[in-house]
Amino acid sequence: MQLTRAADYGVRVMIYLAAAGAESRLSLVDLAAATNAPVSFLSKVLQTLSHAGLISSRRGQSGGFRISTRGRAASMLDVIEAIDGKISLNVCLVAGKSCSRKHSCPAHPIWADAQRAMIQVLSRAGIASLAAESTKHQLNSAAPTHCSLCQDETLAEN
Amino acid sequence: MQLTRAADYGVRVMIYLAAAGAESRLSLVDLAAATNAPVSFLSKVLQTLSHAGLISSRRGQSGGFRISTRGRAASMLDVIEAIDGKISLNVCLVAGKSCSRKHSCPAHPIWADAQRAMIQVLSRAGIASLAAESTKHQLNSAAPTHCSLCQDETLAEN
Repeated sequence: MQLTRAADYGVRVMIYLAAAGAESRLSLVDLAAATNAPVSFLSKVLQTLSHAGLISSRRGQSGGFRISTRGRAASMLDVIEAIDGKISLNVCLVAGKSCSRKHSCPAHPIWADAQRAMIQVLSRAGIASLAAESTKHQLNSAAPTHCSLCQDETLAEN
Repeated sequence: MQLTRAADYGVRVMIYLAAAGAESRLSLVDLAAATNAPVSFLSKVLQTLSHAGLISSRRGQSGGFRISTRGRAASMLDVIEAIDGKISLNVCLVAGKSCSRKHSCPAHPIWADAQRAMIQVLSRAGIASLAAESTKHQLNSAAPTHCSLCQDETLAEN
């Protein structure tokens, strides 16, 4: 019961693209470096995100990937589902299929509750707000830490 | 992101054994029929549950499987983890491993929250109480439904 690597990289790259802004086009190589993802694997993930309309891509010298308006409005759940399809914690919850044991199995409503609880958290996590947090974190990390006693940045960072 | 078949069958068989009671020893074939599980696959699941102390098994003519005291006190989460190991929704949450991106990745706390929400539901679902529900459901289904007007069971069931 674990998220696929594709969906994990998908969430990472969406947050990175959202933080870069709607005007920035970034290359596959830069995105792979930023998300610690293998280039060839990330290429497929980006293709899927593009097909889902969450990012746009352009070929050529001035090309690259950038987040779309729909992508900025997406949640973590939207990104996961664009890559992995609808989440179903157990086979008995697969959309469009019916489990013959559903009405007699006391575990069925528990699987459904557990799935609902997880989905609620993921659907509330917006890509744009996660990107804003990420930018804030980077700005804080980049700011030099001054030691008020010795004025020595190197010492203050240790 | 889906539960393994083994864990699904594990939960089913634990509920069935709990409903049968602490004194009942049931055969592999009966358990496989009751849980709609393939016999050879369920055999491995039962072995794992036995190693975890959630059930006890005895060979021979009067042998079979029965739930242990620990099994009756277990939750759905305990059963899943006995079979699949600790739940980790994403690789960054695997117990004992540290993700290098943990402190800078804004998605990390969301994965942790989603996992916590799901685990909370599964840990609150006790095998014994699910078995009690299952028994109640079976008793209700087995009771003939009388139509107060026509006294015809067949019509009343339609």
